[in-house]
Amino acid sequence: MKISETRLTVVESLIVPDESGVITSTIKSLVELKSIDLIITTGGTGFGIRDVTPEAIGPLLQKQAPGLVHLLLSSSPKAVLSRPVAGICDQTLIITLPGSPKAVDECLEALLSGGILDHALALSRGADSRHLHENS
Amino acid sequence: MKISETRLTVVESLIVPDESGVITSTIKSLVELKSIDLIITTGGTGFGIRDVTPEAIGPLLQKQAPGLVHLLLSSSPKAVLSRPVAGICDQTLIITLPGSPKAVDECLEALLSGGILDHALALSRGADSRHLHENS
Amino acid sequence: MKISETRLTVVESLIVPDESGVITSTIKSLVELKSIDLIITTGGTGFGIRDVTPEAIGPLLQKQAPGLVHLLLSSSPKAVLSRPVAGICDQTLIITLPGSPKAVDECLEALLSGGILDHALALSRGADSRHLHENS
Ligand code: NA
Repeated sequence: MKISETRLTVVESLIVPDESGVITSTIKSLVELKSIDLIITTGGTGFGIRDVTPEAIGPLLQKQAPGLVHLLLSSSPKAVLSRPVAGICDQTLIITLPGSPKAVDECLEALLSGGILDHALALSRGADSRHLHENS
Repeated sequence: MKISETRLTVVESLIVPDESGVITSTIKSLVELKSIDLIITTGGTGFGIRDVTPEAIGPLLQKQAPGLVHLLLSSSPKAVLSRPVAGICDQTLIITLPGSPKAVDECLEALLSGGILDHALALSRGADSRHLHENS
Repeated sequence: MKISETRLTVVESLIVPDESGVITSTIKSLVELKSIDLIITTGGTGFGIRDVTPEAIGPLLQKQAPGLVHLLLSSSPKAVLSRPVAGICDQTLIITLPGSPKAVDECLEALLSGGILDHALALSRGADSRHLHENS
């Protein structure tokens, strides 16, 4: 599954180097754009020295989303080799995906199945959870 | 499954507002009552702005219980939309459940099946794990 | 499954008391031996007062490995009664297993199946993830 096959609208797409400071400041800038509800990163979540995405983004998360991490880690047998973080910073949902296209595909599939990502986005934007629970 | 259907004895039942400070001080007061072995909260674990239970309780946990979090997140397909924390504060086990009655039901079912909660409670109260392992 | 049945070479084997300070300093000493790629601990991860291994080792982890924790917690129905931590400290991968021989067996089985541990070790030692991804 690709982002283009979802109902999500891509408003900004950036490539940054595997440098912790650059990743952190880029995410901060995107969060300050109030028009952005969701930030998805790909890559830099593995076990290598240059894999610093979780360490760069983790401290920015004011609310952890361990359930989305659980979902990502359950998305395939190899998914446990990723080190995802997920959570909310100033009403913006942030999710870190692995770098391999196959893994991104499996993670998006998991996030979008059953409306999980839609529900998480609606709530972090301020919807009333009681209404959303009615159909669950 | 309801608490009343378990072997747990409810010694105190409180409703507090969705305010971080109130939640934190209430949990602290309950932990100080040495007669309480388990604190279960419901609600305030979602993705909304008013969902602050995990952030209010997380810092009180001296020991994390990632396995109980894992169990809660596996209790239903929608469970990943919750943001539970679980762990121990001064020998009191604390577990945060979601707010919807259906989700509470599924979470209690998961915690009680296979004697997981009983085992965790016995150990956090000071039982010898070697004895408990004998039948596992 | 036993360590002796794997391709891992045991270079050091130690038994230490359930004391946080001793556990922390022992792990630090082992990490400083650059010849050691992997540290596996057993025991001290339960819900008892003397179970302090996760609290002793957690603060040493510069990178968390939530996927390996996820794998350990999924290794058997009782595995959620453990409180594992896993991650990297100075290129040394550290994983905390439970104390019961049966649980250790199940955890090693989970870590070694599908080459998960091999892959994690290769990357934390500095292999290029793109090469490793080719066959995944
Ligand atoms: Na080393």
